[in-house]
Amino acid sequence: MKTYNIALIPGDGIGRDVTGAAWQVMQAAAKRGGFALDGKRFPWSCAYYLETGAMMPPDGIETLRKFDAIYLGAVGWPAEVPDSVSLHGLLLPIRKGFTQYANIRPHRLLPGVQGPLRSDGFDILCIRENTEGEYSGAGGRVHSGTANEVAIETAIFTRAGVERIMRFGFEQARARRKKLASVTKSNAQKHSMVFWDEVTREIAKDYPEVEVSHYHIDAMAARMVLAPESLDVIVASNLFGDILTDIGAAIQGGLGYAASANINPDRSAPSMFEPVHGSAPDIAHLGVANPIAAIWSGAMMLEHLGERHAAAEVMSAIASVTAQGIGTIAGKDRTETITRAVLAALS
Amino acid sequence: MKTYNIALIPGDGIGRDVTGAAWQVMQAAAKRGGFALDGKRFPWSCAYYLETGAMMPPDGIETLRKFDAIYLGAVGWPAEVPDSVSLHGLLLPIRKGFTQYANIRPHRLLPGVQGPLRSDGFDILCIRENTEGEYSGAGGRVHSGTANEVAIETAIFTRAGVERIMRFGFEQARARRKKLASVTKSNAQKHSMVFWDEVTREIAKDYPEVEVSHYHIDAMAARMVLAPESLDVIVASNLFGDILTDIGAAIQGGLGYAASANINPDRSAPSMFEPVHGSAPDIAHLGVANPIAAIWSGAMMLEHLGERHAAAEVMSAIASVTAQGIGTIAGKDRTETITRAVLAALS
Ligand SMILES: CC(C)[C@H](C(=O)O)[C@@H](O)C(=O)O
Ligand SMILES: CC(C)[C@H](C(=O)O)[C@@H](O)C(=O)O
Repeated sequence: MKTYNIALIPGDGIGRDVTGAAWQVMQAAAKRGGFALDGKRFPWSCAYYLETGAMMPPDGIETLRKFDAIYLGAVGWPAEVPDSVSLHGLLLPIRKGFTQYANIRPHRLLPGVQGPLRSDGFDILCIRENTEGEYSGAGGRVHSGTANEVAIETAIFTRAGVERIMRFGFEQARARRKKLASVTKSNAQKHSMVFWDEVTREIAKDYPEVEVSHYHIDAMAARMVLAPESLDVIVASNLFGDILTDIGAAIQGGLGYAASANINPDRSAPSMFEPVHGSAPDIAHLGVANPIAAIWSGAMMLEHLGERHAAAEVMSAIASVTAQGIGTIAGKDRTETITRAVLAALS
Repeated sequence: MKTYNIALIPGDGIGRDVTGAAWQVMQAAAKRGGFALDGKRFPWSCAYYLETGAMMPPDGIETLRKFDAIYLGAVGWPAEVPDSVSLHGLLLPIRKGFTQYANIRPHRLLPGVQGPLRSDGFDILCIRENTEGEYSGAGGRVHSGTANEVAIETAIFTRAGVERIMRFGFEQARARRKKLASVTKSNAQKHSMVFWDEVTREIAKDYPEVEVSHYHIDAMAARMVLAPESLDVIVASNLFGDILTDIGAAIQGGLGYAASANINPDRSAPSMFEPVHGSAPDIAHLGVANPIAAIWSGAMMLEHLGERHAAAEVMSAIASVTAQGIGTIAGKDRTETITRAVLAALS
């Protein structure tokens, strides 16, 4: 039987609650699909940090490298461990270390979910550059602590970095409704964003069948609220994609429904799948976290592994559950109730 | 009679249409209020650029300096003049040249206007840093045109720059519902945004009566869509404020209702008032631009000049007009119809 080796990192807070739920559903889908998922759990988290002084062991990245995929719940427990440690010690090193340069996030309303907008007919795929740009980490300070203090943060965009995310975006658009929106702020950021626009125009030549439009980030943020149905594939930088995918999560009803995949398209290293939400310390371990985003992220993992049919089955199961009004109102249904309903719909 | 000298820059496209409308309303309010507005028109625009090679004369800034305020319609005509010329040759030099460091944008629904959200009870004041940060313009490229090309864009934050906008924000919050939300992305931008957070915490000590919260830009973008009623004053950097105010414009029904003021709080130079919308070449000079954002920006100018009563009268006139369903549906009412209705409501 075909077997996939999956590294499971439940992480902190509700990350643990939802990883368990998603894993049960993925296992059930594997059983039906005639393949096996062999999961190995890693306790890397803020609790692990408080014990060992690091979010993961020094050879963490090398350990993960041999897996077919990584599934992550959520990390962070800001009351005890600063975000700078939890994110920069685990999540971001995995994204960058495995060149997971495409962060993909689908935004559409599941049946039965009422979003905040009056409009509900949208189906957007946001593709966020995940390794460079505004989150490069370059910068520093001078005259610290004086009236004259200056802090700088430098966004770094490489031709290879922009080309590959754009090409990935065009491939996705070609397989969908053939519309790609590139998002910049080239009227105010004349170096990085004008460069992004130039590269986009070059890559676009290879995809004449895809209709390309160019938006400024401010206009795109407004468009996602005012006319989301006009959008198909959006490609944006690390920061702009980060912001737009939270707006996407908002219009699809909230973070309980926002799934994501951190993809290494060359498959030279494993990809990572995670719900967009954080560890939500305030509701951790109460059994009330909505596992739908986590299960959806699991479906994205199955799809990436090549198990399209199983992925589609999980997505239909989710949809049939929300269509019944289960998991559609924040806090109403328990994690377990929703998970059981999805498992029932699968079988 | 008290007389204010106003520099009028109608600019391009619908900038011209709405400036005329707003100016009529301001004049009527002045008449009722017993003061005078002496307007001097400057034709600085893309048309002016095509004739003269510059968006404004070399002594443009010096010419404007002696006015009590500047009123601008909109600039830009991208088909003929790139944004890099129109914005960097007029709008941005005025903002920076006159240290208009606080860009203020109110977001609330006017009566009768249906926004895109199901929720309608919000009243937000966004305060955007307007002179530095991510729009500093610093950066460049190496290895141009080669596979190895790199573009960088450096955000620059100064202590004086962050302190003054924060202090301004706290003053505004103190005069409103005493809640201030500071927006950063300090979990991913460790230099500039951690600095911003530090300065915010210091300034906050001087305003113990104001409740401060800290959001990441992605979470705040989502919050403006999911729970706008929970927000009062938002203070954000140049880029983050730019994005959030477009979301604010979207939730208040669109750019037809989004007013703004570029304030020099020390009054060492004139402030500038402008609707947030652009020049909208597609509908220019058809007489269909909604002048409400422009009129509202005019009311902000009257308020800044110290004519509070006149400003309040203009705001009530706008509200009574939209409450009647005039100017509330995009493209339904002509610029002139809406303007006349506001003038009638004023008298
Ligand atoms: C936690 C944070 C560093 C992360 C990011 O900005 O990438 C998160 O916001 C996300 O969108 O995955
Ligand atoms: C036109 C552009 C430079 C401007 C900005 O980004 O400041 C606009 O988007 C705004 O919000 O006033």
